[in-house]
Amino acid sequence: MKQLALIAAAPLLLAMQAPETPQSPAEIVAATTEEDWRPILPENLLIMTLGDGGEVLIELAPGFAPIHVANIRRLAREGWYDGISINRVQDNYVVQWGDASGNKPLPEGIERDPPEEYDFAMGDTYLAEFVNVQDGHYEQYSGYLSGWPVGHSPREDGVRSGTLVHCYGMVGVGRGDNPDTGTGAELYTVIGHAPRHLDRNIALVGRVIEGIEHLSSLPRGTGPLGFYEGPGERVPIASVRLASELEEAAQPRFEVMRTDSAAFRAYVDARANRTGWFIRPAGAVDVCNVNLPIRRAAAD
Amino acid sequence: MKQLALIAAAPLLLAMQAPETPQSPAEIVAATTEEDWRPILPENLLIMTLGDGGEVLIELAPGFAPIHVANIRRLAREGWYDGISINRVQDNYVVQWGDASGNKPLPEGIERDPPEEYDFAMGDTYLAEFVNVQDGHYEQYSGYLSGWPVGHSPREDGVRSGTLVHCYGMVGVGRGDNPDTGTGAELYTVIGHAPRHLDRNIALVGRVIEGIEHLSSLPRGTGPLGFYEGPGERVPIASVRLASELEEAAQPRFEVMRTDSAAFRAYVDARANRTGWFIRPAGAVDVCNVNLPIRRAAAD
Repeated sequence: MKQLALIAAAPLLLAMQAPETPQSPAEIVAATTEEDWRPILPENLLIMTLGDGGEVLIELAPGFAPIHVANIRRLAREGWYDGISINRVQDNYVVQWGDASGNKPLPEGIERDPPEEYDFAMGDTYLAEFVNVQDGHYEQYSGYLSGWPVGHSPREDGVRSGTLVHCYGMVGVGRGDNPDTGTGAELYTVIGHAPRHLDRNIALVGRVIEGIEHLSSLPRGTGPLGFYEGPGERVPIASVRLASELEEAAQPRFEVMRTDSAAFRAYVDARANRTGWFIRPAGAVDVCNVNLPIRRAAAD
Repeated sequence: MKQLALIAAAPLLLAMQAPETPQSPAEIVAATTEEDWRPILPENLLIMTLGDGGEVLIELAPGFAPIHVANIRRLAREGWYDGISINRVQDNYVVQWGDASGNKPLPEGIERDPPEEYDFAMGDTYLAEFVNVQDGHYEQYSGYLSGWPVGHSPREDGVRSGTLVHCYGMVGVGRGDNPDTGTGAELYTVIGHAPRHLDRNIALVGRVIEGIEHLSSLPRGTGPLGFYEGPGERVPIASVRLASELEEAAQPRFEVMRTDSAAFRAYVDARANRTGWFIRPAGAVDVCNVNLPIRRAAAD
């Protein structure tokens, strides 16, 4: 796979120097080199296996919600998620899973009252790395930081504040009423138009990187808020494992396009200015329509 | 049902005069009167029945794409759609249906080469009725016009140009390469984050108003672009009927909240500034996250 990528890169790099027609997003991805990608570390990769064997792979975001992610890792290591179920599927909104009984005891070592990990200080280092995609919609700026969709705005006190953004496939922590922030035992993912009114109101902890179709194609719940109305409708979750707990040969390997790369900037620009079938390029792209490239990596 | 609405309206109208807490979107809807709603005319309502009996109801938008809509009405009246299938389900993008063989002859009277109905002149009358929701994202303004999501911007020649917007559930006309605009025999609906790069590139002709879960929960196609790979995977469409072709008693009745009403403006504002569970209101709402209220109407 590495060799193929290098072979493909040569003519496309020449094309970048003197393009006759703009490159498509797919051509830009094909022309990347290994340096344009970062691996997903096995301690940041969750493998959720449904009762029917369907696998949903989730990348965790410990840099943005370290305490909630620590809880989730512990719950996975302890096997706590095994045997819980998907309890809510609301069309154009979320799929949510957890312990339907609400009585399953949490293991030792879980932080019961994590702090609000809804936003963070957007300092100079982050600002330098941030790639802006859009201005003035929900946040002053929305774009990508360290491979994640992020918005940032000045707060009333003048401090610049960042937040992860609720794009399709992002994974968050269900919570009750404020000040509860949730433990991570109840999780959801977005299966519709980005519900950005949830930003800064709930902890985002990761994103589905493969297998979201096992969630998004589930029957919609017919109860209030899309909850399933009976135990027979709930979808069993067989297990949730951290890839780092598996033998090395069994660990799935993924790579994310580096968002601090020139390739990513070119990719965003190409997504905003589609060619071919398109006759009127939009000239813009929503932060949640960038579709950051994530790929299975070849084994070493 | 009308009586219930009136009873509910009285205390809420008082609350509007001297609100102690802001009304929620649901409270605003509950406080509307009949004047805040417009009916969906039976000649603008398609009933698509799937092979398993699931019903998908679609409101047509003849004011924006009259020639494509005339084709669709004719195809429905002639029973042309009966027996075609859903051939494509691409996650976070579209569900598409049509004649998988590509050989089914079109009936007489179909316009084979409709003009581009991708945009329209945004004159003073439309500007006066338009309710702006967001600035400067894809279009200079995006909001609602006559009950539909619309964006508008000045063109290079100074003329202001409007377009329907590809929100979740919007229905469009599949087409080949330009200058083909499609006849309406091949249709799709959006089942993911608004693909606004399609705006101004393809004719939007309506929206799913009920039953989209029968489409959005279908298994994703595993072929390129989410096409089903074999005839056994395709989902049969039993029939597509115009409500106006049914006996009056059998015609489903729906109402759309009038977007030129004070209630709609209040509703948009409440969607942008959620209370209750929310601790940090977004202060904004995406045109595709307004979730325009549409309801089943009581029989006369």
